[in-house]
Amino acid sequence: VTARARRVRLELAYDGTDFRGWQLQPGQRTVQGVVEEVLAGLHGGRRVVLCGASRTDSGVHAHGQVADCLVELRQTDSDLAYGLRRLLPADVRPLGVRTTDDDFHARKHALGKVYRYRIDCTPHGDPFHRRFALHHPAALDEGRMRAALSLLPGRHDWRGFVPGLPPGTDAVRRLTCAELDLEVSGEIGLVFGGEGFLRYMVRNLVGTLIEIGRGSMPVERVGELLERPEPGRTGPTAPAKGLHLLRVDYA
Amino acid sequence: VTARARRVRLELAYDGTDFRGWQLQPGQRTVQGVVEEVLAGLHGGRRVVLCGASRTDSGVHAHGQVADCLVELRQTDSDLAYGLRRLLPADVRPLGVRTTDDDFHARKHALGKVYRYRIDCTPHGDPFHRRFALHHPAALDEGRMRAALSLLPGRHDWRGFVPGLPPGTDAVRRLTCAELDLEVSGEIGLVFGGEGFLRYMVRNLVGTLIEIGRGSMPVERVGELLERPEPGRTGPTAPAKGLHLLRVDYA
Repeated sequence: VTARARRVRLELAYDGTDFRGWQLQPGQRTVQGVVEEVLAGLHGGRRVVLCGASRTDSGVHAHGQVADCLVELRQTDSDLAYGLRRLLPADVRPLGVRTTDDDFHARKHALGKVYRYRIDCTPHGDPFHRRFALHHPAALDEGRMRAALSLLPGRHDWRGFVPGLPPGTDAVRRLTCAELDLEVSGEIGLVFGGEGFLRYMVRNLVGTLIEIGRGSMPVERVGELLERPEPGRTGPTAPAKGLHLLRVDYA
Repeated sequence: VTARARRVRLELAYDGTDFRGWQLQPGQRTVQGVVEEVLAGLHGGRRVVLCGASRTDSGVHAHGQVADCLVELRQTDSDLAYGLRRLLPADVRPLGVRTTDDDFHARKHALGKVYRYRIDCTPHGDPFHRRFALHHPAALDEGRMRAALSLLPGRHDWRGFVPGLPPGTDAVRRLTCAELDLEVSGEIGLVFGGEGFLRYMVRNLVGTLIEIGRGSMPVERVGELLERPEPGRTGPTAPAKGLHLLRVDYA
């Protein structure tokens, strides 16, 4: 006897270090692949398709990724959460499981996402944060970085920060917040909130902000890139390991 | 031309996960072994003996281990620190290097050490702390743990917490502090400060405190173990991965 199908909303946290990103890829360890495998195990081997709000890249971490799937199980949500805690590996953890509207779509219904990029500025590099933060031992001018960040919020065409977009791609997105915090001692955190993000957009913003903080690019560069996108004028793409998806917001 | 020998005091932080502890062991990756190898490289291959204040066990972490060695280098302390930052792997980092008295002895001159044990009490287990904290999802009664901790400070014979000590071993040590903190959300931290510690003493204290917090041992058990050491009455030895040497104090 199988149970009636119901749509479930999963909240997940993962250490992205040992995953080739979110999205299913044959022969690769991905977050979607690992979670789908456990869900299939609970369904007698039948595939359960998991849709994630953000297709995080290889090495990117998540503290509150949201995904949905149809389950046909008689277990309650809390029993399913318990089962997933037992069956999933230690680097991807279910934070919450709850039955939701049948038409809930984790990606399409997301109103916004918040990312945080961590930069370890200690001279030595904190060994406890090395999987989760970029080590940048040279001095960064926080004032210059904050000045550049203040130019970012708003509705802009971001193609200057995302080189190589196919022609015709809509690169307009609204960024709602771009801030620098010093929450962790010895670290600079860069927080970006917005309705949607293009692939590599946050990491290219961070790479550019680091150049600005080092003094090797002018603060005005970010404004110029928003006005006139020209290739080769951003900083390098910052490494994935410093990028954390903090949360996904819904109505 | 070699420089005059001088004694140097090193402060080190390390993620103990991928080390077989501090102490040199042939064929094993140990912290002492890795740092000595880099120091030997700077001395044309001649061994430089490194003496650490605490011989941390396999898997134990350090935020402020102190070690001393004799160097024969013309580099200044800050140049040596810079060289060590470049040459040491990312999981063992030099926090400071400074020339000290010729008779300084990191282990014998240590007046006290502070350890912290981290217990992740979230139901799911935080994926970002899994290398650095014991995951204990069942409820722990902080009041009972605090009551037991309050019995610990003072000069005691700790053989009840360290089964199998060779006869005649002096197991008397002064514990100066034993406290519970909730600094990290979802975690219990247990902090122990003292003049000296026996091997496994902190981890056996933690294992016993966890049993007391779960309600499966009485609070009074710690007092009984200090009064009448009888084998088999402690909790299990807590895993190494939750244990952190925070600092070593000197005059």
